[in-house]
Amino acid sequence: MNRDDLAALDSADPLALLRELFTLPEGMVYLDGNSLGALPRATAQRLHDVVTREWGEGLIGSWNTSDWISLPRRVGDKIARLVGAGPGEVVVADSTSVNLYKVLAAALSVAAEDAPDRRLVVSERSNFPTDLYVAGRLCAERGYELVAVDAPADIEALLPGAAVLMLTQVGYRTGRLHDMTAVTRQAHDHGVLTVWDLCHSAGALPVDLTAAGADYAVGCGYKYLNGGPGSPAYLWVRPGLADRFEQPISGWMGHAAPFEMSPDYRPAEGIGRYLSGTPSVLGIAALECGVDTLLAADEHGGLEAVRAKSLALTRLLADLVEQRLPGVFTVESPRADDERGSQVSLSCPEGAFAVVQALIARGVIGDFRAGGEEGPDILRFGVTPLYTRYVDVWDAVEQLSQVMESGEWREERFATRGAVT
Amino acid sequence: MNRDDLAALDSADPLALLRELFTLPEGMVYLDGNSLGALPRATAQRLHDVVTREWGEGLIGSWNTSDWISLPRRVGDKIARLVGAGPGEVVVADSTSVNLYKVLAAALSVAAEDAPDRRLVVSERSNFPTDLYVAGRLCAERGYELVAVDAPADIEALLPGAAVLMLTQVGYRTGRLHDMTAVTRQAHDHGVLTVWDLCHSAGALPVDLTAAGADYAVGCGYKYLNGGPGSPAYLWVRPGLADRFEQPISGWMGHAAPFEMSPDYRPAEGIGRYLSGTPSVLGIAALECGVDTLLAADEHGGLEAVRAKSLALTRLLADLVEQRLPGVFTVESPRADDERGSQVSLSCPEGAFAVVQALIARGVIGDFRAGGEEGPDILRFGVTPLYTRYVDVWDAVEQLSQVMESGEWREERFATRGAVT
Repeated sequence: MNRDDLAALDSADPLALLRELFTLPEGMVYLDGNSLGALPRATAQRLHDVVTREWGEGLIGSWNTSDWISLPRRVGDKIARLVGAGPGEVVVADSTSVNLYKVLAAALSVAAEDAPDRRLVVSERSNFPTDLYVAGRLCAERGYELVAVDAPADIEALLPGAAVLMLTQVGYRTGRLHDMTAVTRQAHDHGVLTVWDLCHSAGALPVDLTAAGADYAVGCGYKYLNGGPGSPAYLWVRPGLADRFEQPISGWMGHAAPFEMSPDYRPAEGIGRYLSGTPSVLGIAALECGVDTLLAADEHGGLEAVRAKSLALTRLLADLVEQRLPGVFTVESPRADDERGSQVSLSCPEGAFAVVQALIARGVIGDFRAGGEEGPDILRFGVTPLYTRYVDVWDAVEQLSQVMESGEWREERFATRGAVT
Repeated sequence: MNRDDLAALDSADPLALLRELFTLPEGMVYLDGNSLGALPRATAQRLHDVVTREWGEGLIGSWNTSDWISLPRRVGDKIARLVGAGPGEVVVADSTSVNLYKVLAAALSVAAEDAPDRRLVVSERSNFPTDLYVAGRLCAERGYELVAVDAPADIEALLPGAAVLMLTQVGYRTGRLHDMTAVTRQAHDHGVLTVWDLCHSAGALPVDLTAAGADYAVGCGYKYLNGGPGSPAYLWVRPGLADRFEQPISGWMGHAAPFEMSPDYRPAEGIGRYLSGTPSVLGIAALECGVDTLLAADEHGGLEAVRAKSLALTRLLADLVEQRLPGVFTVESPRADDERGSQVSLSCPEGAFAVVQALIARGVIGDFRAGGEEGPDILRFGVTPLYTRYVDVWDAVEQLSQVMESGEWREERFATRGAVT
């Protein structure tokens, strides 16, 4: 297999034309959409319109005339289509951290009522840190214990005493994919509620919260949803639980009638009560443009086609690394398709940070994640089927080979860490 | 006094040229900056640059190269100059509702340690609803009781048993201004911590949290700070309390070293731990443009000059209404300068909502707030000295007179309520 073979795959790719929906820097191979999605072409113009016409000219009246007030629900309905939820079941609000706090608090309130003797919240040590931090503090406040296991296999033994199982569907380090349906069934068999973080799965593969019977979910807007840096997040709750939702941050936007300005809180029915403060109009408008790029895939095979291409790209990347750089890197991501998200993580005995920097200097953008107790330092390469081409994977591995063969990664300029690494 | 006299005041106004920093629709008199500030001229270009260059070209690297990671602190430092706080004492984050939740939780944690027998949180029924909602739910969770008094005079009697006094410095309905220094001293005399909501005061008048000896404060970005619809909010804590801050929503951005990706939470020193999730880059960039319009007043007398003009404008508005429409409207805002924020609220026996709509149809933008148990329905007119002119006040009252004299407000088209009213 050579580069021409891959160019032929790109030519035959039914998703290829979706790349035109994005602005990508000339000559860059961007493999970090799992950290920050690329800029949709529509976003700059949409934001300009929101700023100059809706805000600048419409001013306060735009809450009605431009229907700003519906943005959290309207864009929530679009995201619902990506995660197997129904209309009216998802709202856009706050950050993933804040939303995780809300849904976990809600889950603990339900568990306290239904199973007061269960005092554990179970998660994984490899979960994204913010999930563990938020859960740890909230558990302490509510008299629960957070137990973060080392491996998925350790979860089952804890379920009999657990109130909530909180997992990220695709792990941020290695991209390991949980079988949401099987894990949820297992949890429910033990009477345990499930909280799913979809940050690294929604938009990269089909997610079906309803079919899985999941209980609560959150996700971010700035990775595969292409909403931009610090984009607002979203949350979902199984409709049957929505009215038992104890919203801990009971702000006015979750009120049944916020503009009555009553001093007494009366929560909105269902998902509406998950809102807290005034929604970020700029942020949600940008997020809508990002979500629209995914919905545009509907006419080209939808998320099933996205998933098929994602698996082909990650398989290709891992294969090429093993073929061209044998013994240099270890593929830390699962090789089995049904266990892998949309990224390939590599480790190497030394210099993972510097190797990533040297690669970035050559126009191939991956990222570095520090190891520690959770495992080795890693180089991460995310693929985003809407704009990643087969030839991009080839070019990335070609550049990686040159970085390693030249030894340039040892240059001092690649050792400097920024504030965000 | 006639319109020419007021035009002369505008000509002599040292702040007059700051109006050029804003884009205001031709022919509109905008008196709703207390609900949504006008669009700064710099914002559209700045956001375009953030979107197309920083995000579109810089992509993930912009967290370092465009220093996105510092935005919450950098813009926080600018806001600090408006509220009498020091550098490093304010961060931009989340919404007012979420921030209020955080600081009230922090205050309750300190109070629980220092004065465990005090179980009351005291506020006012006229406080902005979200403050009461958030506090009510949090109090219930923590075993406290929220007592919302009818009048400021009722506060003192409750202080001996109170843990926290939570007030909005300028009330949203009538614009009544609390003497923050006197009230804080009174609270501290009784061993009570103070939480101040600055949403309707910061940017409209000099606020000095340090001089007042206040304990916690929050405020929003979209009113007098001109940050745009749903702009992120900010929070402050007295430095002496910062390290006792129990961050309830302990997300990764409040970690001492977020990119270590440690599974264990170690809070940042001081104000940094108030951050929770990934900051809204678009929202904070827009907010910075808004805050810059206020800092531009520094060369023209600063917030003292802003306050002097604000008082002159609100006094003028109230005087003109009473002179030209005697017996038609009641001025619900305090007439004493030191008790009034930057707005004038009017009530009328009937049709407040329709009168506002008829006035909006004539290009004078105020807003309506429903009454209920808290008092009558009101028409609100906010003045924003950076862009409100003396002739604007004249023109607004002229149009209001015509609306009333013509009786046009009785037309059916002015009776329809939108989702946001």
